[in-house]
Amino acid sequence: MSEMVPQSHPRYASLKTREKIVEGVEGGITGFNGLIAQGRGEALDYFIGERTTSAGYDAERAAIAMLLLAEQPVLSVNGNVAALVPEEMVGLAEKIDAPLEVNIFYRTEERVQKIADLLRRFGGKRVFGEDPDTLIPGLDHARAKATREGIYNADVVLVPLEDGDRCEALVKMGKKVITVDLNPLSRTARFATITIVDNVVRALPNLVELADEMKELSREELEAIVEGYDNFDVLRRSVQEMIGYLEEQF
Amino acid sequence: MSEMVPQSHPRYASLKTREKIVEGVEGGITGFNGLIAQGRGEALDYFIGERTTSAGYDAERAAIAMLLLAEQPVLSVNGNVAALVPEEMVGLAEKIDAPLEVNIFYRTEERVQKIADLLRRFGGKRVFGEDPDTLIPGLDHARAKATREGIYNADVVLVPLEDGDRCEALVKMGKKVITVDLNPLSRTARFATITIVDNVVRALPNLVELADEMKELSREELEAIVEGYDNFDVLRRSVQEMIGYLEEQF
Repeated sequence: MSEMVPQSHPRYASLKTREKIVEGVEGGITGFNGLIAQGRGEALDYFIGERTTSAGYDAERAAIAMLLLAEQPVLSVNGNVAALVPEEMVGLAEKIDAPLEVNIFYRTEERVQKIADLLRRFGGKRVFGEDPDTLIPGLDHARAKATREGIYNADVVLVPLEDGDRCEALVKMGKKVITVDLNPLSRTARFATITIVDNVVRALPNLVELADEMKELSREELEAIVEGYDNFDVLRRSVQEMIGYLEEQF
Repeated sequence: MSEMVPQSHPRYASLKTREKIVEGVEGGITGFNGLIAQGRGEALDYFIGERTTSAGYDAERAAIAMLLLAEQPVLSVNGNVAALVPEEMVGLAEKIDAPLEVNIFYRTEERVQKIADLLRRFGGKRVFGEDPDTLIPGLDHARAKATREGIYNADVVLVPLEDGDRCEALVKMGKKVITVDLNPLSRTARFATITIVDNVVRALPNLVELADEMKELSREELEAIVEGYDNFDVLRRSVQEMIGYLEEQF
């Protein structure tokens, strides 16, 4: 199963997603720049047909294999992720036995608090981010804040919708970085170890489902999935999806 | 001159544009959905290289020819246009002797008032929108509001960043509709008489400059430009630009 069925109501899904982001802004969880990021995602999602492509699904499988193999996996949550898929992030954290860390681009203590509270309301048990105790090297102070028990000492980090500089800084620390990014040409997409070119509202439910399916696999089977994975090829196929979509139009 | 020089600092320009939209929201001129629209535009602009393409420039020339030939041209201004190019809209209105009409998607009287005031501060003389006296057929009430002296009786309307339904409704009224839309596949792009696939922050300065250059042309010369214009071809070339950009990446 490496080809997902197209969603039956893509326009409805897109509008519902937009509503959630606007609610996130109104609730103080998402920043204005999160709305702009959402718009960029909408345009790009359109170009991959608003569905999980086979390249996206392959990346999702490799991501779960890598998270299940990790010694200290951590899931990072920013304002858009919190607005769109808080429940799924908590669910995934539980299934792979990982903590969550709130990690936002335009940091305010109030927003960090609100996001952490939201994750706890959805059942998040280990939620970091409110009391950072260290800095990620190579970033300016406000954006470098991290927690030793969380992202700082993790070996594998899932950071959906991450900024290019921060993705690069995590990779330079020697971590394996899994991201979700609809732009296969972005700096984040190119720096990450695994780039899931998919809408976060489809990717996270897929990841939760895959975690259930794949937890029975042996260590050797998981390792084979990770070793067989080629991120460059996945990015190339994602760009090819977009070209194919555009070529069909005229 | 049908090929524009690439901007020398595209990333700077993009970030500055984003800032203006955020200021628009903070000042009550732009709605939250305007931020999302800005994000969609950013992603699409990236795919045409963040510069005016030759297709875009051809559409801009045809637009000015059509506006100069018009009997009752009107320029429509929404929240994003007001945040990004208020001065240029007022300048263009003066050069082609056209009124401006505030015409926003999520109408509130307060926002209409603020946009009208802004346009007057920039020197706008005939600004409509605060006292609509009629309805555009085929739209629901809040979105149908229009002014007889403005859009309702216009023969040519420039409506940058317009919604698909409203673009269609104006075309059905028999108007010639010129739009600025970075998505060559959008319903607006396909319905409009002339679709300028360009960023509004580049298109408007170009239009102002072209109005100066072209106002010396004879009626016959202007008519020849309009008759030689092929919107389908311009959309096709714009999509081809995007495909070319994507193909270069891998």
